[in-house]
Amino acid sequence: MNVTVIHGEETRVHPSDLHWHLGDLLKNKDAADLTFQVGGQTLSAHRCVLAARSSVFKAELLGSMQESSAASPIEIRDMEADVFKSLLHFIYTDSVRPVLDVVMASHLLVAADRYNIMRLKQICEEKLCNHIDSNMVATYLALAEQHGFSRLKEACFQFLASPSNLEAMMASDGYEHLKSSCPSVLKELIARIMPAELNTAKDIIMAMWK
Amino acid sequence: MNVTVIHGEETRVHPSDLHWHLGDLLKNKDAADLTFQVGGQTLSAHRCVLAARSSVFKAELLGSMQESSAASPIEIRDMEADVFKSLLHFIYTDSVRPVLDVVMASHLLVAADRYNIMRLKQICEEKLCNHIDSNMVATYLALAEQHGFSRLKEACFQFLASPSNLEAMMASDGYEHLKSSCPSVLKELIARIMPAELNTAKDIIMAMWK
Repeated sequence: MNVTVIHGEETRVHPSDLHWHLGDLLKNKDAADLTFQVGGQTLSAHRCVLAARSSVFKAELLGSMQESSAASPIEIRDMEADVFKSLLHFIYTDSVRPVLDVVMASHLLVAADRYNIMRLKQICEEKLCNHIDSNMVATYLALAEQHGFSRLKEACFQFLASPSNLEAMMASDGYEHLKSSCPSVLKELIARIMPAELNTAKDIIMAMWK
Repeated sequence: MNVTVIHGEETRVHPSDLHWHLGDLLKNKDAADLTFQVGGQTLSAHRCVLAARSSVFKAELLGSMQESSAASPIEIRDMEADVFKSLLHFIYTDSVRPVLDVVMASHLLVAADRYNIMRLKQICEEKLCNHIDSNMVATYLALAEQHGFSRLKEACFQFLASPSNLEAMMASDGYEHLKSSCPSVLKELIARIMPAELNTAKDIIMAMWK
């Protein structure tokens, strides 16, 4: 809160309330002019707010879909209702909900990438980078490789530079999926760690490709 | 800017950009669904943004004027185009333009009061409170009295507790207007300063009412 002292008296200008006002707008649906169908739920929103915040929504809502979206709900495929709700919450308030677990963060990262909402993408990528462990690293690496999340990929590589983390990753549930879906990223990983840990790396390569 | 250090590398999450995005929305008029006629100019805006930010706009735009405002421009009386533009700028961006002179601040204060935009009202009232001088104090006091701006009125009273400031105010251009439009506030001022400066005050009273 900004505090100004005038004539010895403390006075206050309240902090910015734009995000609160838009959060209320999303909740109370005043003047909403769009509906979405997502995972069996119907959600309302405002064309101008979505267009202002996402270049992808702007192209869709003010371009080819302008007429059709006014008349009938827009169907969002391949996304759960809770993820789309969290995406809308960010679009209106510029903040994520207080409890953002890593599973929601990974879904929101994909959603933010899909709708080109850069700040949300950064927030979710930071969240995952800060919560890398040997159980999740294979899943994160596959996600990073499939969507081109370079910061997350780099953080996974740094985590896996430790031979014990690498071995633990290879025993994790996500490893088989990573191996089958993104074999090239494993080769890249080996190339990265090879010079420093030559002998260990050789054993690992053998284990990976056996 | 938030800076996070992960694995020894500095990474960044950009600061909130909601106000930039809405500022661009106001400028580029995407999906605008309202027009205003103000001082001979036509300005575009978005019903949902105005309703979210001002309870007065909400009542007008989502209530009785909902139908008529969709079809034809809304005429704004008793306000200059530049003041209404600055009001819209604040509604969308939650900030005033970098150079806010006291004349614009006084007009914007009245506009913010009219549309019940509390934070803009606080910002403009602080601006005036910080720029009270003997040339302007009579004008500010009349404004404060006519619109019920209690912080500005109190700041004027504190400024006028100095006999030299009081005398200078009585020689200023705004004094005659204050005396004719708000005689009661002068009586209130006299009552406030009387105990401390009894003899001076008596002289002043004589001068005021001669």
